Amino acid sequence: MPHASDRFQAITDTVNRYIAALAEGSVDDLVDFYADDATLEDPVGGEVHIGTTAIRGFYSVLAGLQRESELVSLRVAGNEAAFQFRLTVTAGEHKTRVEPIEVMAFDDRGKVTSMKAYWSQADATQL
Amino acid sequence: MPHASDRFQAITDTVNRYIAALAEGSVDDLVDFYADDATLEDPVGGEVHIGTTAIRGFYSVLAGLQRESELVSLRVAGNEAAFQFRLTVTAGEHKTRVEPIEVMAFDDRGKVTSMKAYWSQADATQL
Repeated sequence: MPHASDRFQAITDTVNRYIAALAEGSVDDLVDFYADDATLEDPVGGEVHIGTTAIRGFYSVLAGLQRESELVSLRVAGNEAAFQFRLTVTAGEHKTRVEPIEVMAFDDRGKVTSMKAYWSQADATQL
Repeated sequence: MPHASDRFQAITDTVNRYIAALAEGSVDDLVDFYADDATLEDPVGGEVHIGTTAIRGFYSVLAGLQRESELVSLRVAGNEAAFQFRLTVTAGEHKTRVEPIEVMAFDDRGKVTSMKAYWSQADATQL
């Protein structure tokens, strides 16, 4: 991604595809956004998942759940993005909505090298 | 800040005071939020300002401007916060609004050790 405007657009597209994949993607689709040695901290202050196997484990909990997602706001700067989104998860009769702010850093190939999700129980709503 | 709930409330209070200071505070008020060896990257991808003198230089450009600010959303997690806010700056007849997402990390004393501001020209509006 040599030009700043190309990089900006590439990161914008990737975040939009990631938000769509949170709702409709497979675990493999989600893992594919990440570089092999990426780190994932969700929520910030919790365990840091390092590398493909750990990241796959993190996303695998979503596999059996009905999910909806929506991008609320996105800011792209340098090789990074910060974005707020809504994720609604349904498990049987239980429906929960969280609205985190996430930060991702990207490598030159457009893969996520670092993801941090900012939210707490105070941001989770039972619907 | 030994207890998680105390820390959560302290960080929440600090971010709200920071947003108020962006509109009404002096340069000293803004610098006072930061630890002595803090880093400030605004926007992300630009120069990293390191330490009190550099951070004072960064905020000094705000001193002569009329400013309004408003917190849009805040997420606190661990020792960090991510928040979106609106800053409107008036210089003569020119009024500009930016709406960044910022991330701050805090030390045990509640001082900011790292600030990163996510925004680009695409997020600046001439009013």
